[in-house]
Amino acid sequence: MFKKVLIANRGEIAVQIIRALREMGIQSVAVYSTADQDSLFVKLADEAVCIGGPQPGESYLNMEAIIDTAVLTGSDAIHPGYGFLSENAEFAELCEQCHIKFIGPSASVIDLMGNKAHAKATMKQAGVPTIPGSDGAVKTVDDAITAANQIGYPVMLKAAAGGGGKGIRKVVDDDAMRAIYPTTQREIRLSFDDDTLYLEKDLSDAKHIEMQAIADQAGHVVYFPERDCSLQRGHQKIIEESPCMLVSQEQRDYLGSLVVKAMQEIGYENTGTIEFLLDEKNMQFYFMEMNTRLQVEHTVTEEVAGVELIKSQVMVAQGESLPYTQADCAPKGFAIECRINAENPATGFTPSPGKIKALRFPFGTKGVRIDAGVEAGDVISPFYDSMIAKLIVHMPTKAQAVNKMRRVIKEFKIEGVATNQAFLYDLLDDEHFKASDFNNMYIENSFLKAWLNKNDTTKS
Amino acid sequence: MFKKVLIANRGEIAVQIIRALREMGIQSVAVYSTADQDSLFVKLADEAVCIGGPQPGESYLNMEAIIDTAVLTGSDAIHPGYGFLSENAEFAELCEQCHIKFIGPSASVIDLMGNKAHAKATMKQAGVPTIPGSDGAVKTVDDAITAANQIGYPVMLKAAAGGGGKGIRKVVDDDAMRAIYPTTQREIRLSFDDDTLYLEKDLSDAKHIEMQAIADQAGHVVYFPERDCSLQRGHQKIIEESPCMLVSQEQRDYLGSLVVKAMQEIGYENTGTIEFLLDEKNMQFYFMEMNTRLQVEHTVTEEVAGVELIKSQVMVAQGESLPYTQADCAPKGFAIECRINAENPATGFTPSPGKIKALRFPFGTKGVRIDAGVEAGDVISPFYDSMIAKLIVHMPTKAQAVNKMRRVIKEFKIEGVATNQAFLYDLLDDEHFKASDFNNMYIENSFLKAWLNKNDTTKS
Repeated sequence: MFKKVLIANRGEIAVQIIRALREMGIQSVAVYSTADQDSLFVKLADEAVCIGGPQPGESYLNMEAIIDTAVLTGSDAIHPGYGFLSENAEFAELCEQCHIKFIGPSASVIDLMGNKAHAKATMKQAGVPTIPGSDGAVKTVDDAITAANQIGYPVMLKAAAGGGGKGIRKVVDDDAMRAIYPTTQREIRLSFDDDTLYLEKDLSDAKHIEMQAIADQAGHVVYFPERDCSLQRGHQKIIEESPCMLVSQEQRDYLGSLVVKAMQEIGYENTGTIEFLLDEKNMQFYFMEMNTRLQVEHTVTEEVAGVELIKSQVMVAQGESLPYTQADCAPKGFAIECRINAENPATGFTPSPGKIKALRFPFGTKGVRIDAGVEAGDVISPFYDSMIAKLIVHMPTKAQAVNKMRRVIKEFKIEGVATNQAFLYDLLDDEHFKASDFNNMYIENSFLKAWLNKNDTTKS
Repeated sequence: MFKKVLIANRGEIAVQIIRALREMGIQSVAVYSTADQDSLFVKLADEAVCIGGPQPGESYLNMEAIIDTAVLTGSDAIHPGYGFLSENAEFAELCEQCHIKFIGPSASVIDLMGNKAHAKATMKQAGVPTIPGSDGAVKTVDDAITAANQIGYPVMLKAAAGGGGKGIRKVVDDDAMRAIYPTTQREIRLSFDDDTLYLEKDLSDAKHIEMQAIADQAGHVVYFPERDCSLQRGHQKIIEESPCMLVSQEQRDYLGSLVVKAMQEIGYENTGTIEFLLDEKNMQFYFMEMNTRLQVEHTVTEEVAGVELIKSQVMVAQGESLPYTQADCAPKGFAIECRINAENPATGFTPSPGKIKALRFPFGTKGVRIDAGVEAGDVISPFYDSMIAKLIVHMPTKAQAVNKMRRVIKEFKIEGVATNQAFLYDLLDDEHFKASDFNNMYIENSFLKAWLNKNDTTKS
């Protein structure tokens, strides 16, 4: 059993990991950058070590400094949180070599799922439906045109090494392909040091449905109710909910069986999430990608399934069995997460770093949970993401959850930085949102335009 | 339907009522004393009216000022919260006369249950087991001695108009009765303006088990899983939990059927709690008293039953049906509430009023709820109770809930006033507490002495 765990992350998720470890009787070690020296997670951890400057490369992406700190503090394991090194196979490999348990899947599994083309081929082999596409890399623009004509335009040209919305282009015909292919290849070579491209049918007009699961070291896998994360802007999730109102229990069981089978076949350990595109026209699910780590939005799953995922991750990493069965994880009620960010929706959601002068968290009453990593007086740093807090509401029905979430957002007082509260408040009141009548493009193609128009302060 | 509701209370419960009203789309009116002008509930309410000075009699017990404010602000109803006027039949009557809906039972029911002897007789008639006693008032000391010998010493001598631990004396034999009877009668005449006394078998060494229920105007009643509130000091509850670990589902159903039948027979409307003494030797329940209002500890019931009780109260008062069935309210998991007070356990829990200089609420992670009415910089006033916040934890099992509650208490940073955190932290780790092996006297007769001894800083 672990005595001490190092957290290779910062902010909100570092705080929640420290809490989970404390409840398990495990010591926590925080590593932090000079920009974070006064952060809540540094104050809460049992030990805290400064590992470098504010640029991520100097600290939170500095593998050697992190591993060194783990060794020096006598840490048994490293929890990578989300972002930073959480999906870095090299880092997981380094941990393995240093006999420090990486709380996540093996380096080889992270590597396999990190390459989008390999991941797709693996899933296809495991029986998971995949998006019709080039079936591997396209080598030249002519190959791409041939494949695109077989799939049918519009298609998406994607970087095999991409992720998080980077290295993806929509292509509508042969002429466009001839123009876009070479520029995309050049771009991704610079970004990813890998210029492999592949094609997929355009399913941008679909719902983003994802299913998280967890596997223990004995290969037992439990899946959790799906999340609907379709409300995105620039591939950044805005509101996540669980379960998806459109998915029946039968479809949930079907998706779950796909996820369990796939995870068992690739020898997955710990938690991961398979993201699907749901084509609402025929209610077909297609594999999009797998996140081999905890996600920001795991909170709604915790609420609806009635589990604690960080603790489960630690237990599984220690070699323990899962503390719950599949039957325990049936969906109970409805949960919504809103990410409150220091950003300005009126100017394209530009980050609004700065000092939080006043802060009144609207915690309290049944069904409200706030996972935050900041306090009044803290600074939202320009070096990192601009999240202030995750608001999570869990109620018997979606209508009740929406109602409570709007009250909570309205009551949340944040002074000193711009926030997306007003945008979220209005989105929660949108009829399409309430009816689950939205897909991946709804925010950008429809809601945001109308909202910006309505909130244009330059008009009288 | 109500458009506006006045809250005849302050602090934590006023905040939660404002939130419930807001989620229901109802305007809130706060009334406050001059001591509370900067309080959170005053800031959060839609309207706030100062009604008098800091002494309760000048403001929160000032019926005329409150009713006048309700009329002047056009309030449809008054929510009395707990304490203050919440069990005052005269106030409920005044509301009725002024055509303002009192959110609670009728004045006549409050009056009936407020007189302990009448309440007991009523419950006995409704088939609820009552504590063997004098069957009505004893008129003289000789009557008392006769009755005591029939019941068997030790007995409790109680004021019919008493409550909250006042006007109760334990009597062990005839000589003691001759000494105690006249002094008790004089005392209670001064306190309650009513010197009626009655006798009951001494069940001080029993568990305090209470069951809350709610009745709509059509007489439908739903009961909730019982609470174990045995951990008390000076008749003040310290930790409450639900369900009681020793009560089986069969016993729960039995208690529930008693409560439902009694509430229907007395024509009860809205929520109320029947308090029972559980004699563990024979697992018999005896009626103790009925609280005709919401209680501080209703939060654990909300968690375990999956309901929102303030909203239910408002719905019922509006004439709506209950929004859940008996089956919906079966116990789910285990909940604990700890009251964090500004008080000093080392000096007999003396209140520690003063300014809260720093405050870090440990909200966050699944299963944690904090209902509070204060912010950093607020003053815990010497005029009112010294509660800072209610910490509520809801987890699948008691062991998990206890574990999380200890982490939460430890993380809760409060500077500027003394608190009972260390006392609660240790109590949560007590083996008797964990095993539910405690009764009403456990704190005073056992745990507290040992704890004070261990924490006596005058020893080396």
